[in-house]
Amino acid sequence: MIDLQYVPQDEFARVRALQTGPVERTAIFADLCRINTLYMITRAGSGHIGTSFSCLDLVSWLYLNELQPPDVFFSSKGHDAPAIYSVLAALGLLPFEQIHELRRLNGLPGHPDVSTPFIEANTGSLGMGISKAKGMLLANRLLGRDGRAFVLTGDGELQEGQFWESLVSAANHKQDGITAIIDHNKIQSDTWVSRVSDLGDLEAKLVAFGWHVARVDGHDVGAIARTFASLAKVTGAPKVIIADTVKGRGVSFMEGTAPEAGDRLYRFHSGAPDDDTYVKAVPELVERVNTRLSAAGSAAVRLVSTPRPERLMPARPQKLVAAYSRALVDEARRNPRIVAFDADLALDTGLLPFEAEFPDRFVECGIAEQDMVSQAGGAARKGLLPVVHSFACFLSDRPNEQIFNNATERTKVVYVGSLAGVVPGGPGHSHQCVRDIAVLSAVPRLVLIEPSCEREVELAVAYCLSDASRDSAYLRLVSVPWDVPFELPGDYRLAEGRGVELTPGGDAVIFGYGPVLLGEAVKAAVLLRARHAIQAAVVNLPWLNRIDRDWFAGAVRDRAAIFTLDNHFVHGGQGDMLLRTLAEMTDSRVSRPRVVCRLGILDVPVCGRNDEVLRAHGLDADSLCETMAAAMTATVNT
Amino acid sequence: MIDLQYVPQDEFARVRALQTGPVERTAIFADLCRINTLYMITRAGSGHIGTSFSCLDLVSWLYLNELQPPDVFFSSKGHDAPAIYSVLAALGLLPFEQIHELRRLNGLPGHPDVSTPFIEANTGSLGMGISKAKGMLLANRLLGRDGRAFVLTGDGELQEGQFWESLVSAANHKQDGITAIIDHNKIQSDTWVSRVSDLGDLEAKLVAFGWHVARVDGHDVGAIARTFASLAKVTGAPKVIIADTVKGRGVSFMEGTAPEAGDRLYRFHSGAPDDDTYVKAVPELVERVNTRLSAAGSAAVRLVSTPRPERLMPARPQKLVAAYSRALVDEARRNPRIVAFDADLALDTGLLPFEAEFPDRFVECGIAEQDMVSQAGGAARKGLLPVVHSFACFLSDRPNEQIFNNATERTKVVYVGSLAGVVPGGPGHSHQCVRDIAVLSAVPRLVLIEPSCEREVELAVAYCLSDASRDSAYLRLVSVPWDVPFELPGDYRLAEGRGVELTPGGDAVIFGYGPVLLGEAVKAAVLLRARHAIQAAVVNLPWLNRIDRDWFAGAVRDRAAIFTLDNHFVHGGQGDMLLRTLAEMTDSRVSRPRVVCRLGILDVPVCGRNDEVLRAHGLDADSLCETMAAAMTATVNT
Repeated sequence: MIDLQYVPQDEFARVRALQTGPVERTAIFADLCRINTLYMITRAGSGHIGTSFSCLDLVSWLYLNELQPPDVFFSSKGHDAPAIYSVLAALGLLPFEQIHELRRLNGLPGHPDVSTPFIEANTGSLGMGISKAKGMLLANRLLGRDGRAFVLTGDGELQEGQFWESLVSAANHKQDGITAIIDHNKIQSDTWVSRVSDLGDLEAKLVAFGWHVARVDGHDVGAIARTFASLAKVTGAPKVIIADTVKGRGVSFMEGTAPEAGDRLYRFHSGAPDDDTYVKAVPELVERVNTRLSAAGSAAVRLVSTPRPERLMPARPQKLVAAYSRALVDEARRNPRIVAFDADLALDTGLLPFEAEFPDRFVECGIAEQDMVSQAGGAARKGLLPVVHSFACFLSDRPNEQIFNNATERTKVVYVGSLAGVVPGGPGHSHQCVRDIAVLSAVPRLVLIEPSCEREVELAVAYCLSDASRDSAYLRLVSVPWDVPFELPGDYRLAEGRGVELTPGGDAVIFGYGPVLLGEAVKAAVLLRARHAIQAAVVNLPWLNRIDRDWFAGAVRDRAAIFTLDNHFVHGGQGDMLLRTLAEMTDSRVSRPRVVCRLGILDVPVCGRNDEVLRAHGLDADSLCETMAAAMTATVNT
Repeated sequence: MIDLQYVPQDEFARVRALQTGPVERTAIFADLCRINTLYMITRAGSGHIGTSFSCLDLVSWLYLNELQPPDVFFSSKGHDAPAIYSVLAALGLLPFEQIHELRRLNGLPGHPDVSTPFIEANTGSLGMGISKAKGMLLANRLLGRDGRAFVLTGDGELQEGQFWESLVSAANHKQDGITAIIDHNKIQSDTWVSRVSDLGDLEAKLVAFGWHVARVDGHDVGAIARTFASLAKVTGAPKVIIADTVKGRGVSFMEGTAPEAGDRLYRFHSGAPDDDTYVKAVPELVERVNTRLSAAGSAAVRLVSTPRPERLMPARPQKLVAAYSRALVDEARRNPRIVAFDADLALDTGLLPFEAEFPDRFVECGIAEQDMVSQAGGAARKGLLPVVHSFACFLSDRPNEQIFNNATERTKVVYVGSLAGVVPGGPGHSHQCVRDIAVLSAVPRLVLIEPSCEREVELAVAYCLSDASRDSAYLRLVSVPWDVPFELPGDYRLAEGRGVELTPGGDAVIFGYGPVLLGEAVKAAVLLRARHAIQAAVVNLPWLNRIDRDWFAGAVRDRAAIFTLDNHFVHGGQGDMLLRTLAEMTDSRVSRPRVVCRLGILDVPVCGRNDEVLRAHGLDADSLCETMAAAMTATVNT
């Protein structure tokens, strides 16, 4: 177990009082924030180092020297939340002790949320920042307030159409109260922007859109200072600063300019460093700080040490995305018409093996989900079988109209949304996808499937891809490696609309899908038996919008209680389909259950450790057991 | 009753055989197509004249001289479908008699659909064209085929972010097989592009995005010919032609350059001309044609006359959008924080009175729904009460992620989606919004309401806007003027989750919402009584995602049959909520109905006259009566 180190609040106060001038003070302040950002992410076990480090000189300058109430500043990219928290905490704008609570329940969310003080906008879904700033300035104008808006964006983010949409009216209305700052660190989620979807002549594009463009070395604080000073005099046009930055700036081996920059993937986009990496990185940052402090005639920085918390890791986790990855390659070997589309998540959606084996059939679209889905539609019209990938939260809703448009052409397209459901809980609600079943349920001839384990992933991929006559499909995948406390029967096969009993039980039946909540349900069934003498069957039903009525009638027969369990909002989830089917089964031979209850997400998902999130939503085994027992023992009073 | 006139197919054959050279032949051909386009739209009673006329010289040139199999051409804007049909029919690529069947069931859809021969892509939802073309060329490449792609776009369409998204990879991959043609007629849905959301220096923007740009007078066929010839030699970059055109080209008073161009609205974007306008327009087109034919030494054009079909018009229609328009202004007078956002549909969404009275509080966003919704989110964060407008089909899904993002900020935003439901049936599935309830059902704290008549619109607007403490809301409005065969009780008030009985009946109860299907249900109830001696109550339940269980228990008590009626896909509609609630009401005091049945849309909506569409989906009074009677008299065999 290593110790982690952070800069205490009084050290920030000392630096802010240095008599070295604002530029030098800001540079030192930014590196102190890097130390704390690294601390927060390492302690949390996840987060985005590269993009946090690349923006810290800019963000520090803004907070220390530029922003005046009622100005607003916010990040549109969202990945840099730890950097912004480190600045806010250093300035006393957040309770300082919150730096120990990144990505924890009631702590600091993985992506920004306005419930946190001085966080102005919810982000993490890219491309919304300038639009929001325009709305804020409109409100200021109508309500007689002053104030400018500063919006930080990523560079990969510029691939989103909304960014370009949002530029137009700001230029037409000469909204010189808006300054966008592009953290142009040249690397997006997977790899170099130029390799994913090159931005071309970015300055020319922005000028053509009518914005006043400045360019600056985003780590040269003096130059940053001069840039903001000169922009203050510009009127009659919105302003954008292209800040040339280095991803991972401050730790040599994390920098995007490091020798391993030739690799397929940049290693420090997301995730926490391991112990070795952490202990190598901190001294570099400390040395940078101390050199500057020494030059300013000030003492070395004082750090506080605290043990790295132990992380709860699954013992023998099932990895559904890895299983998907293998199954996709297998199908692609058999069917040369399969092409895979990616939106800058090739690593996370399991596409690297496919890309390596079928480079011609791999289409990298960048962070441009609408373009991706319509490209897939065009490809399907001309005879290919497109398989379209992103995180479920970005694939199901941003290109929702495009998915429907494809469906109206009656072609076959397979969509694969990973990172589905409420865990991992660390990234927060922009990434916790709990609406995809609802938003896709009314797309005609689109079957929605969520497998519960690696083996079922293989079956589901074969179902979706091996038979071209089958409907289009949406494959919903939990990404987080998960200990799965059940096994499918040896002879299990997928049959449309039918499920399989994982544990027997005559009193109640719990329907669910996916490894996370089925796992909790199986554990809840054990608890129900032990604590309440209730025998509850758990049924895996991977079909999210198809039901075989005969099978379902058998599955509910003579059960006093029926529970549905959605890793999704209860509204529009699988439970809705099951309860609707139950209501339609008016056959008097089907006995009427005494308890019918949907369980799932009821409000915006909370951010936190996975166990915290499940418990907060009442979806851990213990909560499920007690909720179900209470429902069954209560006097029925609808 | 006037006669309508069209150019028969043999006249096109005669023109194509003229020895005048391709440029003159094309010019004559295009004007003949204008005559038939005007015929089709006038006969259909709706359609888009302006945009059809502006593109016809370009489209005619393409089909007569440029396209070679396996090239593909399609329009991304979709409004110009009548123009394209007129060309396809003239060339024998469509059965010629189909020109009499625009916007009719099994005829030619209001917006393009690939079920029509030689229609390559479904459009009408803007901005998807270049993306689709890229997918098509990918398929060609992988499947060893040649072929170029020509994509026609509007200029208002360029406000959609997806257009800019889609440019990037085409440039990076040097896709010189793609030629985009911008029909730059300067006028979008409501009015001049420059007044809605000015495109700025369009050439500079496209050049900055790495496309090879050509510019041409889109009505100078010789120049068009030279432009295509010169572009054929350009390699290494995708190509775009900015074609300067005139909306309504060919009929002086329909042209965007006509003296009334100073008006707020351009009059010939959509809708059919009245008799006077039609008889004024045709001679102008005929004279243009005959002048050219005479110069070519050929006889005057022969036209075929046929009576204009009588249109079925509602007798005393309720106009919900007009009622909305008045109610919004009333609320805005009381509450200065109300601001209205529009996406180039100010006329159709009823915003003109609001704009006139509160110009400062009216925000025109152009066809940029994502930007609009996020702007509204920013405005709400800073204290305004934004009311966001578009057609339901464009408001509910394209900015779906942005609506959810706003919801996670827990601000109040009101969304108003008009043109909801399956009628009007003429525009086709891109505009028939039957998925909005589903795609919005899992947005937390968003109440969905659809009023059934003008009076209920007023109540709903007051509910949504008069109390800031209430949840965000989505107001779903039927736009088509409709004869409403019921009246709400005099003392009717909105109560969350509760409905009101429109007609009594002890055997069955039919739940529905909105003027269209409630109207059909009330008529169906009369038929059920007369034909089958079944007494069916009809209940108006304007709450699409809220239910008061006590009220509902009373409404279903002792009814043998329960029917739900969705002007929406049955999946994810109000019926799902009601049946789910029914399943949850396990109280033994609630009797179990013998028949429970959801009625609504089951597949992609068909295009046609309103009565045809309702009947095709089994949702007219007669079909409903027989479906319900059959369900109630059948032996129950689930």
